[in-house]
Amino acid sequence: MRNLYNLKSLSLDDILSILKRASEFKAGAVADFSGKIIANLFFEPSTRTQNSFIMAEKKLHMQDINLNPVVSSLQKGESLYDTVKTFAAIGVDAVVIRATENEYYKQFENKLQIPLINGGDGSGDHPTQSLLDLMTIQEEFGVFLGKKCLIVGDISHSRVANTNIEIMKRLGMEVYLAAPSVFQNQNYSYVDFDEVIGDMDVVMLLRVQHERHAEKYHTTSERYLQKYGLSKERNAKMKKDAIIMHPAPFNRGWEIDGDLCEGGKSRIFEQMSNGVFVRMAVLEYCLSGE
Amino acid sequence: MRNLYNLKSLSLDDILSILKRASEFKAGAVADFSGKIIANLFFEPSTRTQNSFIMAEKKLHMQDINLNPVVSSLQKGESLYDTVKTFAAIGVDAVVIRATENEYYKQFENKLQIPLINGGDGSGDHPTQSLLDLMTIQEEFGVFLGKKCLIVGDISHSRVANTNIEIMKRLGMEVYLAAPSVFQNQNYSYVDFDEVIGDMDVVMLLRVQHERHAEKYHTTSERYLQKYGLSKERNAKMKKDAIIMHPAPFNRGWEIDGDLCEGGKSRIFEQMSNGVFVRMAVLEYCLSGE
Amino acid sequence: MRNLYNLKSLSLDDILSILKRASEFKAGAVADFSGKIIANLFFEPSTRTQNSFIMAEKKLHMQDINLNPVVSSLQKGESLYDTVKTFAAIGVDAVVIRATENEYYKQFENKLQIPLINGGDGSGDHPTQSLLDLMTIQEEFGVFLGKKCLIVGDISHSRVANTNIEIMKRLGMEVYLAAPSVFQNQNYSYVDFDEVIGDMDVVMLLRVQHERHAEKYHTTSERYLQKYGLSKERNAKMKKDAIIMHPAPFNRGWEIDGDLCEGGKSRIFEQMSNGVFVRMAVLEYCLSGE
Repeated sequence: MRNLYNLKSLSLDDILSILKRASEFKAGAVADFSGKIIANLFFEPSTRTQNSFIMAEKKLHMQDINLNPVVSSLQKGESLYDTVKTFAAIGVDAVVIRATENEYYKQFENKLQIPLINGGDGSGDHPTQSLLDLMTIQEEFGVFLGKKCLIVGDISHSRVANTNIEIMKRLGMEVYLAAPSVFQNQNYSYVDFDEVIGDMDVVMLLRVQHERHAEKYHTTSERYLQKYGLSKERNAKMKKDAIIMHPAPFNRGWEIDGDLCEGGKSRIFEQMSNGVFVRMAVLEYCLSGE
Repeated sequence: MRNLYNLKSLSLDDILSILKRASEFKAGAVADFSGKIIANLFFEPSTRTQNSFIMAEKKLHMQDINLNPVVSSLQKGESLYDTVKTFAAIGVDAVVIRATENEYYKQFENKLQIPLINGGDGSGDHPTQSLLDLMTIQEEFGVFLGKKCLIVGDISHSRVANTNIEIMKRLGMEVYLAAPSVFQNQNYSYVDFDEVIGDMDVVMLLRVQHERHAEKYHTTSERYLQKYGLSKERNAKMKKDAIIMHPAPFNRGWEIDGDLCEGGKSRIFEQMSNGVFVRMAVLEYCLSGE
Repeated sequence: MRNLYNLKSLSLDDILSILKRASEFKAGAVADFSGKIIANLFFEPSTRTQNSFIMAEKKLHMQDINLNPVVSSLQKGESLYDTVKTFAAIGVDAVVIRATENEYYKQFENKLQIPLINGGDGSGDHPTQSLLDLMTIQEEFGVFLGKKCLIVGDISHSRVANTNIEIMKRLGMEVYLAAPSVFQNQNYSYVDFDEVIGDMDVVMLLRVQHERHAEKYHTTSERYLQKYGLSKERNAKMKKDAIIMHPAPFNRGWEIDGDLCEGGKSRIFEQMSNGVFVRMAVLEYCLSGE
């Protein structure tokens, strides 16, 4: 068995072979893990990631068991650690976890006899999201080397940005960041959206996380779209073959003009489709591994 | 593939063939849709309809995936449209939707490559509920033509009433309505409950939707039962072969005397049983069709 | 079919044969109940019991359908009775119920054509928890006769304590109780924790149910642990072969020192593992029986 905590701890070989396997699944490859039962333990709200894992599990003939945090013993004060150990004790074959605490997975090192797959930790990592982003870029351009990606928006709270910046650089991509000052993480440097957009292959927008900082960043959707969003004007400046990506959920009219979400350059829904295949490959990698 | 938005858009032939197929399923017919995955997206609370669809899916060897609106990205402001498109993108084979907005399904015309089955929209339609009502009436009387049905209660907010009035008339039934004035929808005319009851074949009661108009209609259960409910006195006036129906959940002691729910004239739990078979037929109709 | 309301109504023969079957399942025995659909109706929060039943059902090749009390028609005021009857009407093959009301199951006698398995009723019974406790004791010691068990903590609100006291005595065990005075149920007599601990084979701790009596028992974790919890000092006084049990969820640092939960004497996670096998045996017993 193998864990997937983050992409940092995977070799490029492993990453490329997961992507290859995901493409095979998309092309119709099958694998049969009947009898395996996976616990999806999402301690934070999620539609896409959780249901994408569930779909991946069903397509691999696994069974899924899902924590409902609203009616579980978390209400009686049980810790994340003891909840996860409980699912291991009742015999599940792997756990997929989404949690608010960064690097929550560290407490499980050498404590869990089954694979742990990180479905997103706080503002830390989101490895399967990055893998589906990479799959989408690879499908589009064939190569990573030299491709230019601009990530725009709430860099400071985004596990997607953190994970992508690191892995894209390892793969030889050029990564640029643009963000309002309140959303900047001071570890990075930033460019001007309008100056670079005409030169980018990928424009990746991040969600304005209203629920995290309503009080911090007062503005209107119109103003945000005009200053930091992908408006129709900016879209017109993009290269002919460039694509638009977003981890979703997106706020139509904030970080992206609503009409562009389903437009010709958008790969947003393709990313979601690829997410299922990437997660099939990750589940296989973790359960078969070593 | 075919959608089921409402019964208005189905021919009588289609409706009768769905009912026939539902009876076959009840008599033991089987169908195998293994590999098909259905998303049940209930944006409003539901016990009966959602679990009835889940049962139907399991009996057809489909797999089900269920949105939990309390812990999903709806909490992050994602729209119904984008949530449904997300489930389509991750590869489900059909969606069953319950939503508060009337005719929410119109926004999906030509936007969805998979069948959409309406599990109830606001105060609009509830096609599978009507189909199970029809199946129950057909089982009882063999024919629809000339049968008399009285629908009593909150007509104005009831998608069940709206859908049933239309289809029962098309099938040649005589439909009568009785309701307190605050619950009357001015498109229809109303009769006096006590004057007609002795002549009815079906008395269909509607739930007092306390959660929708607690403030609007102040009364006690006793007074409501006496004026507009099926009390033991009214029950005694019903024809010997007449039946009692209710879409449930019911408020015992309000729109119906508690003892009558499981009495000899009641078909309330039979309706629930029939609901599973009707939904099997609808799923088959939508997934196999055209 | 057979119900499992409580252990009182089972013969010792039945109990021992359920335990034997659970051990066989743990050793790898299989049973195939494909086509059977079980409704898990948990009207109270639960992680362990509900998911343990789900695991048991999946391992028996049954399918599970789960009530989400937060988004169900309970929100529209539907009663427990009518909710359960609804699941029976839509055709499930058995119901597993957890509810707050003691002996809620009595209202279903002769009213339900399918097995009802009690997953815990208020402060009344918790038969499958007791069975997993017994399985764990039997695995450890081989026999029940003469073994000494001390149950410590909130006796008055604990269905675990109530059920265990009765069945352990029937099996010839010696049962001792220790509890703060506010947690004493006056039907029983109590001993001093420190006087008896050195003589016990099993020390079974109960959870401080903060959510039930925050106002009633004001203290700190340190003080509770020192007076009524299994501290490291008390642990050191235990017999060499004695074991620690807890129904969980546990409050580390309250009724038990955190480090002891995963220590050498603890059988807490083993109890959880055994829970799945016991529930497989119970499901088989109820569905095949008589």
